[in-house]
Formats: sequence, C-alpha cells, structure tokens
Amino acid sequence: MDCIFCKIVDGEIPSSKIYEDDDVLAFLDIKPVNPGHTLVIPKKHFENIHDTPNDIFAKAMIAAKKIAGAIQEKLGANGVNIGMNNGKAAGQIVFHAHIHIMPRYGKDSFKLWTGKEYQKGERETVTEKIKSALKQNF
Amino acid sequence: MDCIFCKIVDGEIPSSKIYEDDDVLAFLDIKPVNPGHTLVIPKKHFENIHDTPNDIFAKAMIAAKKIAGAIQEKLGANGVNIGMNNGKAAGQIVFHAHIHIMPRYGKDSFKLWTGKEYQKGERETVTEKIKSALKQNF
Repeated sequence: MDCIFCKIVDGEIPSSKIYEDDDVLAFLDIKPVNPGHTLVIPKKHFENIHDTPNDIFAKAMIAAKKIAGAIQEKLGANGVNIGMNNGKAAGQIVFHAHIHIMPRYGKDSFKLWTGKEYQKGERETVTEKIKSALKQNF
Repeated sequence: MDCIFCKIVDGEIPSSKIYEDDDVLAFLDIKPVNPGHTLVIPKKHFENIHDTPNDIFAKAMIAAKKIAGAIQEKLGANGVNIGMNNGKAAGQIVFHAHIHIMPRYGKDSFKLWTGKEYQKGERETVTEKIKSALKQNF
C-alpha cells in the first residue's frame, strides 16, 4: 500500500520516534505548529477514527495522554491540544488514522475554531438525530 | 464547586444530552462550529487530560468515537474533528476536561492549524527531551 505512515512504521521512511509499543507508534510531525508536535498512529493501517478498532483507538489515546504529559513536563509547554482530523472535509491529509499532540506556549496566537449560535429549534432536531444512532433515550 | 459542567452533570443547568453512562456525559456545545458539535466529559470533575484517570479518559474517547460515527451517519457530515484543549494556552475555557466532536461538511472554510519548519538540530533535541520523560530508548 502506498501509505507514508505505513512506510514510517516499516522503517522505510525515517522518523523522529517518540514512543513505540506493539500496536502504536508516535513520532514528530515534520511540520509542527510548535516544536514537539507529535503524531500517534496505530501501526496497522486504518483510515480514520471510524474503522480503527476500539481497543487500538483507546491504546493510541492513552499513549497520546502520556506524551502530552511528557511534553508539558520536558518542553515547558503551558498547554496542549489533542486533535484528530477524520475525512478530507475535516482537514485530514494522510489517510492513515493519526492523533495530533500539540504543545502550546501561550505566545502563539493561533485560534483553533470559532463557534456560532444555533437557529431556533435546530438544537432539538440535531440532538434527536444523533441520539437515534446511539439508541439513547432520556 | 463553581463549575458549569459539574452543574450540567447534576442537572442544575439544562443541556441537550446526546449520550450518558456511569462515567461519561455528552451534550451539544452551545456555540458549535457546525450543528451537532458535541462535548464529551467525565462526570467527575477533572481539570484536563493530565489529571483524568486513564480508564475514564479511554471511556470518554470511546464514547467520542461512537458519537463521531453517529454524527457522520445521521447528520450527513463528510468528516469529523476530535479536539481537546488542555490549559489556557491551548484555548481551554471551561476547566473541566472535555472532548470536542465537530462535524464537518466540506463547505466551511475553517483551518485548524498551520505547520512550520523545524530549525536545524531542533528536532533531535526535542525528541530526546520528550523521550526522557517516557523512558523510551530506540
């Protein structure tokens, strides 16, 4: 498969490795928002959050949590963003599931997103639609 | 404690509930990037990723994964962003740990972040610093 992250897992393409276990690999993003910006990926190829099995996804997220702690401890970051983009519409560029861990220093000015207001009645409609897939009743 | 999310858990402040179990609650963000923007929180008060226990964090992330699937299935989203801001420097506003699930439709133009290049030698230094906290050797 012609996947750059699979090639990183296989060692075909070099990377700055941060963490590795049987299921998960972490390495520095080559275009960081700030130095220390790390990616955590499942070693097996999954495209996005939806097709990554729950146990592997949880392992990758726990690894991301540990790395977030290490980043704040060792790089002197004041904050850290966790991010995962799924689908081209969400800004995903490499189609091998990956979690971003981004150190923040309080000096950069980038704003991740801006909220807006719901239209009247829209919130109720949306809630029911999502709940219908989760089969939750309140 | 004067925490708005604790008040939502207690039912003191109303919310559009999406999902609930013993440890985790999900409800609509009142200022969504797009309709369906959902927050997942641990019911117990933890400030951020660092002080949330691993098992609770994993449960919250698995809930986020399920909701992300529901959002793509029922709202016709083409993509979904997962995000978690930890610390004021990372844009955290409510200091009760929360995970954002943001549907994307391919029509909004917002860009989450922009990368930049590493300086010469900086990548190696940063890698060793983070690894020293994780005690990983390659």
